[in-house]
Amino acid sequence: MSFSPLIRQLIDALRILPGVGQKTAQRMALQLLERDRSGGLRLAQALTAAMEGVGHCQRCRTLSEEALCPQCADPRRDDSLLCVVEGPLDVFAVEQTGYRGRFFVLKGHLSPLDGLGPEAIGIPELMERIEAGSFSEVILATNPTVEGEATAHYIAQLLAPRSIAVTRIAHGVPLGGELELVDGGTLAHALAGRRPIGL
Amino acid sequence: MSFSPLIRQLIDALRILPGVGQKTAQRMALQLLERDRSGGLRLAQALTAAMEGVGHCQRCRTLSEEALCPQCADPRRDDSLLCVVEGPLDVFAVEQTGYRGRFFVLKGHLSPLDGLGPEAIGIPELMERIEAGSFSEVILATNPTVEGEATAHYIAQLLAPRSIAVTRIAHGVPLGGELELVDGGTLAHALAGRRPIGL
Ligand SMILES: [Zn+2]
Ligand SMILES: [Zn+2]
Repeated sequence: MSFSPLIRQLIDALRILPGVGQKTAQRMALQLLERDRSGGLRLAQALTAAMEGVGHCQRCRTLSEEALCPQCADPRRDDSLLCVVEGPLDVFAVEQTGYRGRFFVLKGHLSPLDGLGPEAIGIPELMERIEAGSFSEVILATNPTVEGEATAHYIAQLLAPRSIAVTRIAHGVPLGGELELVDGGTLAHALAGRRPIGL
Repeated sequence: MSFSPLIRQLIDALRILPGVGQKTAQRMALQLLERDRSGGLRLAQALTAAMEGVGHCQRCRTLSEEALCPQCADPRRDDSLLCVVEGPLDVFAVEQTGYRGRFFVLKGHLSPLDGLGPEAIGIPELMERIEAGSFSEVILATNPTVEGEATAHYIAQLLAPRSIAVTRIAHGVPLGGELELVDGGTLAHALAGRRPIGL
């Protein structure tokens, strides 16, 4: 089970990737060394370029090395809708639903116990963005967790005095799930949010 | 679904890793950018060092940047046993069984249709290694595939004139498997290789 030092260091380094354990890291390291060294070097270059070069979009705060990310730079998107999420991966998730409005990316959620208040997660910048825009609706798509709910609630209160519709993504049973496997809180939300069946 | 160019390039580069598809690569890229940039830079350095620095052990031909790999350099291993495998990952697999003899690592298996004859896969070097050693047994642990069998058979023939025991790893039903799921060839091998139950 002994590898030479450079191989061992590569295996250790690969384990920082999410979902990669010892065994997967070994297979990755040896496969790159045996079959694709130029691919391994390209990956090293792409990592360095991204880790050193990527900052945040000036407008929506998502990850981007350019002043405006592709979503903000696109003139064809709907300027009346703003979707607020907790992180860049959520932008991607919402994009996949077909949403084509604008985004604002918080730095996570409010977490008073960790000392993360409104300033720490970028709520002043969110308010500036809303001020500068012409949104008719702000969709709060923070996570359906206690902290995500509290964050959505906090933002909704800040926006209450304005003539902007503030909405929250619906809670309910996930599509394709089995009712008996859904937790009680979710099922309660699904019941409370019941709607007439369109026939 | 648009990422800025550096992020897109990183996602593409991550996909060269075995088992990493588009979605996993996205999660890896964004997670490194959001949570562990110094880890990402360390991974880049480890990749570069390994891709440029790792060669082959002079004695067993496994991957190593040192003249002798840890297995060959270890004076406490059994010098009477030599295990022949198709690649460095197989060394690792055999090590995990508790085997503590020596290894020789071929460059894959004989594959005449691809123009891979004995020289291409390192069989002359294997013969030199056996000549230089004092092995009483050579264990052929090439893969249980048509090509692996043919390679083992070829090596066994070369070694036949010598007073060295030449063995092949046993074929049979894998532990924990269900008989009805085992393919016919494997089951035939398992029947032919039946042994008295030790009571
Ligand atoms: Zn943006
Ligand atoms: Zn070696």
